[in-house]
Amino acid sequence: MRIVLGVEYYGATFCGFQSQAGRCGVQDALEKAIQLIAEHEIRIHAAGRTDTGVHAMCQVVHFDTDTDRPESAWVRGVNAFLPASVRVIWSKTAKFIEGEDEFHARFSAMRRSYQYLLINTPVAPAILTTKAGWYPLPLDVVAMQKAAKFLLGEHDFSAFRASECQAKSPIKTLLQANIHETSGHIVFEFSANAFLQHQVRNMVGALIYIGNGKHPPEYMQTLLENQNRTEAPPTFSPNGLYLIGVEYDKKWNLPVTHRPITLI
Amino acid sequence: MRIVLGVEYYGATFCGFQSQAGRCGVQDALEKAIQLIAEHEIRIHAAGRTDTGVHAMCQVVHFDTDTDRPESAWVRGVNAFLPASVRVIWSKTAKFIEGEDEFHARFSAMRRSYQYLLINTPVAPAILTTKAGWYPLPLDVVAMQKAAKFLLGEHDFSAFRASECQAKSPIKTLLQANIHETSGHIVFEFSANAFLQHQVRNMVGALIYIGNGKHPPEYMQTLLENQNRTEAPPTFSPNGLYLIGVEYDKKWNLPVTHRPITLI
Repeated sequence: MRIVLGVEYYGATFCGFQSQAGRCGVQDALEKAIQLIAEHEIRIHAAGRTDTGVHAMCQVVHFDTDTDRPESAWVRGVNAFLPASVRVIWSKTAKFIEGEDEFHARFSAMRRSYQYLLINTPVAPAILTTKAGWYPLPLDVVAMQKAAKFLLGEHDFSAFRASECQAKSPIKTLLQANIHETSGHIVFEFSANAFLQHQVRNMVGALIYIGNGKHPPEYMQTLLENQNRTEAPPTFSPNGLYLIGVEYDKKWNLPVTHRPITLI
Repeated sequence: MRIVLGVEYYGATFCGFQSQAGRCGVQDALEKAIQLIAEHEIRIHAAGRTDTGVHAMCQVVHFDTDTDRPESAWVRGVNAFLPASVRVIWSKTAKFIEGEDEFHARFSAMRRSYQYLLINTPVAPAILTTKAGWYPLPLDVVAMQKAAKFLLGEHDFSAFRASECQAKSPIKTLLQANIHETSGHIVFEFSANAFLQHQVRNMVGALIYIGNGKHPPEYMQTLLENQNRTEAPPTFSPNGLYLIGVEYDKKWNLPVTHRPITLI
């Protein structure tokens, strides 16, 4: 059977989601813990790979097993073997739907959502050091909001694509690009069918170069048209980036897969 | 002259605010950094001492120096010598008021405010591990709100006082005791003229024993009347506790000294 998990993790203690030779990926920690419950080798598949330092409020993964355990064992049992910086939030046996492809954490995902938390105060944060990006100069949020509108829809996002990105195509559809400010905290929210490697951090980097007045909002349009990563502003810090949700068709009947960060 | 600083710190990396033999207190880090700017020995005085693991969004401290520096040097200069988990947010030369006692971070403070962030979900948080308390069983917020009302006003708070507390009197005046819940995050907010050692963590501990149904709201009244720490529920974790503000008379003309937590 195929087991689906909702997972929260703190990215600063891992070298990204993906399994690494040094076993420092979130995937390594999850596979090791799941294997202790399943009592056989496990390979997990995730909705999205996150970079070193990037957090997840809700990553979705699946794995196959013949070991019969109550759903709670894949939560409490696995959590007992995980470091405190990764938690399985829920588990669910994937539904089998007659005549359809089997559920797949990555291929069944219709939409991914990220939030970027940016602290925009003259002095750096002492408490949220690894949980937020920081930019000390004043930012024009209205200019950034105007610029973000150019990103919406289907585009070739080559200007925001890491050189090592393995995606088949640079063409993606951005469904949401919102920016909100509350007392020195700016939250960027992006949703897309899929993202290129470093795309969100590169878009945030470009938005900051517009917010600080270095470029007008229309600069975003130029970047998209030129499709040239090397002329675009630098990749922003991973610290403030959170994978907050993965959307699947309702037919899969999964528990909550959208968990935004909360500002009060 | 007397310099006043607003300070943010992440308590998990320190053994409390107060200077310790091992130099692991927030005070030690601050004095060491300020000395490098002042170029002489410095002794700082704080509005309140926080325990190991307790954070401050706004601690207020002062020190005396004859070294003449622009106010910005006490922010940017000092920050350059501090670990990333402590930041000076602002500095201000204390105002001298004819015929009045000199400003004192501790003795001039009229009111202290704390927030306690409690995550109340079946699974522990992976991201806010050291920045929130966690309680897995359902809590009745309305019962806790009723119980908190008993704490308001002037009382002998001996039931909530650590045995090593050095306060002259257990009688304090609680001015605010609010509890709010947002999607599994409970924020307790307390203000008082002053607090006893561990008082907030002990009050939160008692409120949780009421929220989980072990005791009715009126139990809080009994605890206050009996003035007996040993019969009260245990001290709750320091992880979720934040000193968020210290109130001074407006005549001192200080920058913002009230900074509630923003990320939950």
